[in-house]
Amino acid sequence: MPAAQIDFWFTMGSTYSFLSVMRLAEIEKSSGALFRWRPFHLLVILQEMNHVPFADKPAKSAYMWRDIERRAAMYGIPARLPAPYPAKHSVVANLVAAVGMREGWGADFVRAAYRHWFQLGQETGSEPNLSESLRDVGQDPERVLKLAAGDEAKALLGAETDAARALGIFGSPTFTVGRELFWGDDRLDDAISWLRSGRLQRT
Amino acid sequence: MPAAQIDFWFTMGSTYSFLSVMRLAEIEKSSGALFRWRPFHLLVILQEMNHVPFADKPAKSAYMWRDIERRAAMYGIPARLPAPYPAKHSVVANLVAAVGMREGWGADFVRAAYRHWFQLGQETGSEPNLSESLRDVGQDPERVLKLAAGDEAKALLGAETDAARALGIFGSPTFTVGRELFWGDDRLDDAISWLRSGRLQRT
Repeated sequence: MPAAQIDFWFTMGSTYSFLSVMRLAEIEKSSGALFRWRPFHLLVILQEMNHVPFADKPAKSAYMWRDIERRAAMYGIPARLPAPYPAKHSVVANLVAAVGMREGWGADFVRAAYRHWFQLGQETGSEPNLSESLRDVGQDPERVLKLAAGDEAKALLGAETDAARALGIFGSPTFTVGRELFWGDDRLDDAISWLRSGRLQRT
Repeated sequence: MPAAQIDFWFTMGSTYSFLSVMRLAEIEKSSGALFRWRPFHLLVILQEMNHVPFADKPAKSAYMWRDIERRAAMYGIPARLPAPYPAKHSVVANLVAAVGMREGWGADFVRAAYRHWFQLGQETGSEPNLSESLRDVGQDPERVLKLAAGDEAKALLGAETDAARALGIFGSPTFTVGRELFWGDDRLDDAISWLRSGRLQRT
């Protein structure tokens, strides 16, 4: 039986995930694919791998911003780059996203947090990004941040991070169809193709 | 004045470059874009960055082979994966490629070496890959390997590696249009689009 949906694994401190976060609602409509948003804390996995994707690599970082800028323009997504990076408290944004996914406003919060980060220059996971993004989606920052600081949110995010590691995920965004991994916003078409036919088709 | 061609920067020890090497002749015909093949020794730049892309990262390596396998199938390129990796003497393959580019049989050698590596399982840069690939393209291994071991080949490859570093290149394959970088086989469409219109266009 083919998988019925695509899992969208992302971490709030990821730069390239911006493109997917901003595109996914439209792609869901145009492709008919269903996405399940699954925030996890990639930093733990990166530390286990002893891997720093960009922050200590100036040439790769410069390329990353330029690549995102060009592709955001292609997709018609406004962006003011480079955004503050790396985000020092991305774990808080991930915890809030985990709470939001459980309560049903998660995807909206994630989009708001990326807008505040990549369009207004507010570092994700810190203030004022957290409270302003929560207010944008009709949530009380005090209530939510208290929940995000609690054991339940920690357990929820930890379980998703464990599930990501078990799937072999090492980057964000990653799309999964069953146990098949597609890493990067630029593999979204591949994931949709795999969902439909179990293979990649040339566009 | 728009750039007239795309520079194709590659290193012979690179796995993802396989896809570009095998696709480029067809893409040149279908797109009308002209490619200049520029082998360089990426390993030097990676060591300066203190970066190991795959070899010490099992989850990322497993994904890399699966991703290449799926995409090779999509493009109809035969491949028997995983191929031996990392290639211990990729510098020799790069030196031979540099000699070949100067003498006019470089691209044919590079394609032959990747076929031997990714289809027959012969590690690139070592025997029998080197001699068999050279014979495949009508070259005498003894003559060419002597040239590749000489100071002139070393200077040629070193100059190209310096030029790559100066452009901000940190991976293979990289396509450049003027000073604009496109990293990865999956950015080839972006490079062609940039060559044509100075921006990315949705396909």
